[in-house]
Amino acid sequence: MNKRIKTALISVSNKSILKILIKNLSKYKIKIISSGGTYKTIKSYGYKCTEVSKFTNFPELLDGRVKTLHPKIHAGILSDRDNKKHMKDLKNQNFEEIDLVICNFYPFDKVLKITNNNNKIIENIDIGGPAMVRAAAKNYKNVTVITSCDDYENLLNELKLRKGSTSLTFRRNMSEKAFMETGSYDASIFNYFSKVSKNIYPEKKLIVSTKVKELRYGENPHQTGAIYSLNENQKIKQLHGKMLSYNNYNDIYSALLISKSLPNNLGTVIVKHANPCGVSINKGKINSFKSALSCDPTSAFGGIVSCNFKLDEKTAKEINKIFFEVVLADGFDFKALKELKKKKNLRIIDSRSFRIKDFSNFTNNFNNLLTQSTDLKPFNLNNFKVVSKIKPSKKIMDNLMFAFNVCRFVKSNAIVITKDFSTVGIGSGQASRVDSCRIAINKLRSQNKNYKRDELYAASDAFFPFTDGIEELVLSGVKAIIQPSGSINDKEIIKFANKLGIILVFSKTRHFRH
Amino acid sequence: MNKRIKTALISVSNKSILKILIKNLSKYKIKIISSGGTYKTIKSYGYKCTEVSKFTNFPELLDGRVKTLHPKIHAGILSDRDNKKHMKDLKNQNFEEIDLVICNFYPFDKVLKITNNNNKIIENIDIGGPAMVRAAAKNYKNVTVITSCDDYENLLNELKLRKGSTSLTFRRNMSEKAFMETGSYDASIFNYFSKVSKNIYPEKKLIVSTKVKELRYGENPHQTGAIYSLNENQKIKQLHGKMLSYNNYNDIYSALLISKSLPNNLGTVIVKHANPCGVSINKGKINSFKSALSCDPTSAFGGIVSCNFKLDEKTAKEINKIFFEVVLADGFDFKALKELKKKKNLRIIDSRSFRIKDFSNFTNNFNNLLTQSTDLKPFNLNNFKVVSKIKPSKKIMDNLMFAFNVCRFVKSNAIVITKDFSTVGIGSGQASRVDSCRIAINKLRSQNKNYKRDELYAASDAFFPFTDGIEELVLSGVKAIIQPSGSINDKEIIKFANKLGIILVFSKTRHFRH
Repeated sequence: MNKRIKTALISVSNKSILKILIKNLSKYKIKIISSGGTYKTIKSYGYKCTEVSKFTNFPELLDGRVKTLHPKIHAGILSDRDNKKHMKDLKNQNFEEIDLVICNFYPFDKVLKITNNNNKIIENIDIGGPAMVRAAAKNYKNVTVITSCDDYENLLNELKLRKGSTSLTFRRNMSEKAFMETGSYDASIFNYFSKVSKNIYPEKKLIVSTKVKELRYGENPHQTGAIYSLNENQKIKQLHGKMLSYNNYNDIYSALLISKSLPNNLGTVIVKHANPCGVSINKGKINSFKSALSCDPTSAFGGIVSCNFKLDEKTAKEINKIFFEVVLADGFDFKALKELKKKKNLRIIDSRSFRIKDFSNFTNNFNNLLTQSTDLKPFNLNNFKVVSKIKPSKKIMDNLMFAFNVCRFVKSNAIVITKDFSTVGIGSGQASRVDSCRIAINKLRSQNKNYKRDELYAASDAFFPFTDGIEELVLSGVKAIIQPSGSINDKEIIKFANKLGIILVFSKTRHFRH
Repeated sequence: MNKRIKTALISVSNKSILKILIKNLSKYKIKIISSGGTYKTIKSYGYKCTEVSKFTNFPELLDGRVKTLHPKIHAGILSDRDNKKHMKDLKNQNFEEIDLVICNFYPFDKVLKITNNNNKIIENIDIGGPAMVRAAAKNYKNVTVITSCDDYENLLNELKLRKGSTSLTFRRNMSEKAFMETGSYDASIFNYFSKVSKNIYPEKKLIVSTKVKELRYGENPHQTGAIYSLNENQKIKQLHGKMLSYNNYNDIYSALLISKSLPNNLGTVIVKHANPCGVSINKGKINSFKSALSCDPTSAFGGIVSCNFKLDEKTAKEINKIFFEVVLADGFDFKALKELKKKKNLRIIDSRSFRIKDFSNFTNNFNNLLTQSTDLKPFNLNNFKVVSKIKPSKKIMDNLMFAFNVCRFVKSNAIVITKDFSTVGIGSGQASRVDSCRIAINKLRSQNKNYKRDELYAASDAFFPFTDGIEELVLSGVKAIIQPSGSINDKEIIKFANKLGIILVFSKTRHFRH
């Protein structure tokens, strides 16, 4: 049912387009009630406005903390116009109906960004506003509530269309948005409180995210999809190319997770189906890319490349020889960008602002959230124990660390074979460890043109249960292996490694990833 | 700083242990203000209590919708005791400080469960309660707020310890909980509204989840972890065995996703590292399990088995021959349970109440949420097109449907080879499709004792880009293949299939899963 707007209560922290709103509302002879800054602004535009304290006949208290928290305001908003007793109550008290509430809160998230001062943050928790908005939203059968400047135009269109009234559908939709605002407002306050008190796993977990955009489809064309951000900023910037798809986003974050874990300005990662198919660190930018590519050029086709350095023209030209869906880099030389842009569809993304610190780690399984701390700590050399008779040189140890770091980002069971700080064989996603070994070895043999059986090192994300996987790795040329240990066969495996004359290093930590 | 409690405002929907609370509060000579049902209950216990309307000297309006929304209540709660102007305001109005607010809201989620009537649901949105609680929570420097019966004991212990006062730490923690309650309350209301309006991708996504338990650790021992539920009930019931770990939960939901998609009472799924290593449907329970196991008995070791039927003793005995971490079934015969319980640590779970309908589907990547509709619709035979000269019998077509259904739950690129409604080779998680074919074929050859090259069928989750994968499958005995189509080589692939004399079926839908 349409409801005519006769009285409006307005209290807004964002006054940017208030003038247009008031000017238009005045056409419908709507009585406006307001207070504080909003009241002064409206008066300054030359429009009539009743101050809340005059309306309630009660002074503002506690520096404005208490002004709208008054029965005359709340009975005016909450009364059911179809309920005779409610109407009688209003009449007895000489109260009047309030038909429209326009209110936005001081944005709590913004305050968090500009100060660390707890008192200031707490002071900015709005009490009166949410109370009014919730009351109006509950009574959407009778009352219109507007909580965002973005809806002023919708409101004015509605009033124009319905000659000073609003429809039930409109009021209901605005009510939905109002609870979205109050819900996310208090969830943000709660998340601030629990962050301060280091309450990592509180009784309830409230996740607030803002829509970045709806996607053309989900993982597959028959699924719908959208991306939301838990921050206001995604920290990646698309410079060129086609719209990012659901699978692009998924691959991008898989790629960034690895490339940002590599030493700055040296790393290249190529990802396909959310799994790495080439990772390398090298001081020469073009060599960093070439080495990553050489691990599995077949799989790289149609994949995503992520460089943790500023891309130069030479490397861009090399990249452009291959068909990639997305190129990410921590900045681009002017000429590099020009080169890449020759491909009309290629998605080019600047990731220089992106950091992998402090992100929340949870997965969703059938309405359950599995949440955990991240597995991103840099390795500490002191945690690794050389258990073989042959001891590794510093160079070999560094290579093993590189291999083990890549290994923790590969889906379990993971086996990574490397050579000169570049992957040359990756085996992933197998239920049996020896199968992952075989897949890595097959890649090594089939994809690496200059396959030589020297200076090959391997990492395993969890312990080898038997010697079979180690045997196959060594037969294909691997000279040193790092693995977590923890099998009942550990002693036998050490003996076996010594028999084969390889280096074996035990890490204390396992790195499953599913 | 400790603050003495002199005046308390109490308004609770849950009155279960109110008597103990009031009895204890009376020891500290705390003045109690209350209204409605809470007032009547307190009086019935024989304790002194001031009615809100007497306290404010203002009548309850609109059937109690407006009672605490009064300046005397809110100034009493919100006043900063260290602020001279605030104190002067109170004195001028003859107002008094309120030091303790005990309030719980009518549980909105519970209302949703007992009615579909929109008016009743909206009527149950609490307005006065959250306003009071938010005011008290903001002013935790001075005021104590209690929002859950679970905290009555903590409050009474605090009062005892501090002789009628509360500490700043206690008040702050209770304030944190209060915002958890108001945030989740409004998020639930918003989620109800957007469900009704079918607003699938609203501007903000608010996820509310309740902690089920903290886990011993996350995916790896050096990570902490916890499980939360978006519903109040997980719908799985552990009957026996060790505590479920993070990885157990992850595997359990992977297993249930598949087993619940299979025809009722016929299906068995074995999962390891969140990937299936054996899936079967068979009318004989024991055969259903045996067939699933025979696909890859090596990988099944230490895995999870999920049967979508009531487990009998014979099958339980067969299951017990293998080391599994978890056994899930839709119920257990008394003797089956007795048999399984012989293994002290075996986690036994009843999944009969579990359904895969209506769950929200999102993944988290670095503070981004990728969300999409699920890929769970049953296949429609009309969508499949036979493109080869040789046409499949109904039996072969049913086998292909089974294979294709399993395929969509396997990590991409996925190849599933089946025989007689049971998987015999699964290749997953590879960047190149032909690699997945080879892995599936290797499993078929190495694990299946009675490997015969007859009645083998295969499914692929996305199109074959070239003929190489198909060739390898056919060479190992595959007689019919189902795949989405969509390659520029489709025509050539059809020609190739006809040359080899196999059946080729195109589905319209791709089923990537990452």
